[in-house]
Amino acid sequence: MAHEINRDRGISTIPPRILMGPGPSMAHPRVLQAMMQNMIGYLDPDFITVMDDVVSMLKKVFGTTQNTLAISGTGSAGMESGLSSLLEPGDRVIMCVYGFFCERMVDMAERIGAEVIPIRADWGKPFPEELLEKALRTHTDVKMVTAIHGETSTGVSQPLEALSALAKQSETLFMVDTVTTLGGNEVTVDRWEIDYAYSASQKCLGAPPGMAPVAFSDKSLNRIRDRDTKPSSWYLDLNLLSKYWGEERVYHHTAPVSMLLGLREALSIVLDEGLKERYERHKKNARALVQGLQALGLKTVAPEESRLDQITPVWIPEGVDDDLVRGLLLEEDSIEIGKGLGDFAGRVWRIGLMGESSKKEYVLMLLSAMERILPRAGYEVAVGEAVSAASRVYSED
Amino acid sequence: MAHEINRDRGISTIPPRILMGPGPSMAHPRVLQAMMQNMIGYLDPDFITVMDDVVSMLKKVFGTTQNTLAISGTGSAGMESGLSSLLEPGDRVIMCVYGFFCERMVDMAERIGAEVIPIRADWGKPFPEELLEKALRTHTDVKMVTAIHGETSTGVSQPLEALSALAKQSETLFMVDTVTTLGGNEVTVDRWEIDYAYSASQKCLGAPPGMAPVAFSDKSLNRIRDRDTKPSSWYLDLNLLSKYWGEERVYHHTAPVSMLLGLREALSIVLDEGLKERYERHKKNARALVQGLQALGLKTVAPEESRLDQITPVWIPEGVDDDLVRGLLLEEDSIEIGKGLGDFAGRVWRIGLMGESSKKEYVLMLLSAMERILPRAGYEVAVGEAVSAASRVYSED
Repeated sequence: MAHEINRDRGISTIPPRILMGPGPSMAHPRVLQAMMQNMIGYLDPDFITVMDDVVSMLKKVFGTTQNTLAISGTGSAGMESGLSSLLEPGDRVIMCVYGFFCERMVDMAERIGAEVIPIRADWGKPFPEELLEKALRTHTDVKMVTAIHGETSTGVSQPLEALSALAKQSETLFMVDTVTTLGGNEVTVDRWEIDYAYSASQKCLGAPPGMAPVAFSDKSLNRIRDRDTKPSSWYLDLNLLSKYWGEERVYHHTAPVSMLLGLREALSIVLDEGLKERYERHKKNARALVQGLQALGLKTVAPEESRLDQITPVWIPEGVDDDLVRGLLLEEDSIEIGKGLGDFAGRVWRIGLMGESSKKEYVLMLLSAMERILPRAGYEVAVGEAVSAASRVYSED
Repeated sequence: MAHEINRDRGISTIPPRILMGPGPSMAHPRVLQAMMQNMIGYLDPDFITVMDDVVSMLKKVFGTTQNTLAISGTGSAGMESGLSSLLEPGDRVIMCVYGFFCERMVDMAERIGAEVIPIRADWGKPFPEELLEKALRTHTDVKMVTAIHGETSTGVSQPLEALSALAKQSETLFMVDTVTTLGGNEVTVDRWEIDYAYSASQKCLGAPPGMAPVAFSDKSLNRIRDRDTKPSSWYLDLNLLSKYWGEERVYHHTAPVSMLLGLREALSIVLDEGLKERYERHKKNARALVQGLQALGLKTVAPEESRLDQITPVWIPEGVDDDLVRGLLLEEDSIEIGKGLGDFAGRVWRIGLMGESSKKEYVLMLLSAMERILPRAGYEVAVGEAVSAASRVYSED
């Protein structure tokens, strides 16, 4: 029964990394400190305060006065909780599909027995609202429409107000993935009339992965409470979760104490910085990155007017070895960038600038590393120009 | 958008607690240190090592050479993953029911459309194997039998070998909840022929809540891969999870980095101590606690020969105010003990001695506090006798 790990009784370590992929992003040191505290019981009055703090700060970050809580799982758990709690078997749902994670939503909704109508549009462009309009004219008794605010597979920022208005005209619920955008981009659940939005702790919120913050309308809550059948998932049942997080405090599961302490701290940091200031920071760093990438001759997947500030997929130049470049970045500079997913596997790199990873120093560091590494992959660049182009953005006013 | 929390920019803190409830238990300081490290990507070679370490150490702790991984959720997610991955709608499952968490399993299995045959027996006693034998004679084509090794609602240790043998005779899968026992009590998945066992990070393993370690047989894996239908849950689909954790490394979700670093460290500490030594420690502290409680005149729910070492439910004496006693322990001594669940709500206290909480100092501290507090709740005790009784156990050999 001997084991080979940690013979020195020191902790097992991992190397420091600059995380510029699709997430996890860097975690704020204050978040990690908060997570290092002792355990506390899930019914302890001091822990109830932690939960209440998370609820009230999430309301500010989501732009809602309605309902918020954090699900004890990653962003995909937030996706599944919404679909399985809001849809009953046989319910008709129209899904706007324009990337890898949209397809995941289709898979999940089919598993719970919903009647899924996927409306597929091109990857790499915003979803055209006319397609939804047409679908809503064609299909009656639609229970929900779904969309993704920031598709990390393509880097497209999806305008939500027109889609929401169409959903409302047809009196259906509107569910939105804000995994990549929350905390780095405006998300206003109430004004955009979103009925269910979910996100993740490890992107623009600056905490480790493991929690899925969600916001949902009173209308959604009523829908959930009026279901004819219990949701197929007990663990992700939003009705039970809302009773655990709400005044009833009905025991559901043992809350992940450290993760919630971290999330509370992260939300506090987000609000300390200020939402507007934070969005501006993400915008400026993305602009600097894109200027630099363009100076390298690389092309972003998303058109300029629809580009996400949080993640920037770029086309890998003809003949350049995807794995070689990402491998050298990791080995020599300890920088992680993301690879392509689904249809874009092997064709794009995805560069994330989210939360604590959205920093000037990392933008400059990555561009400098690319100037050095790309020629070794057979792609010539004019050294210094990318860093210089990015630096000019930071010198503007 | 002003917010009121953390105006001093220091981290928000929680009070130190001695956790002697049903979990979370205390976390080992080395685990908390490991969790404080920087983030790392889920495809980083150094993170793959973390996952592989967890898999190989879990095999030792679960006593199996077959399959292990850790689910990104709490123990209940482990419960749901097993039920929803191993059962298809209409599949017949016999559930041995003898406590609160057994009833949770019934609820979950019904939600996924299984044909559930609950065999209910008395709370507070081991489940009689004759009842399972009879049920297996009555019902044909049973796909699975379920049981719980340590029911925390009652504190009963359930012998598993006889139940497993009956399941095997009927060629059905055998699924077991080891949430409370893993790491504090012998669990040998291979020898006991368990097809699916799940646990939780925050009890006898000494990590924070948020991960559900699981072990499953090759037979289970084949069953999952041969399903006619996809499991209703995508997030908890054991087939997808086994491909993510296995050699294929097919991206599923963003792994909760900090929690996995913590779990790796916790497992390493468990193996450093040695499984046998760890079981002995749990046994000795439980014996000391029970001697002390008996000196106070309190009676354990479980009969002596079936008593769990991990959690000790005791009957609240007639006329004593449950909330008052637990409240005073928390306020004055910062000790948490658990309250009763379900049928036992208001009737029992549940005292946990699990993982890092299973320590001599906490046993003595709690008994001393009880000697002081119980008289204030109208229950007279001979001060000093409980601590003395426990101390004698520690003086043996």
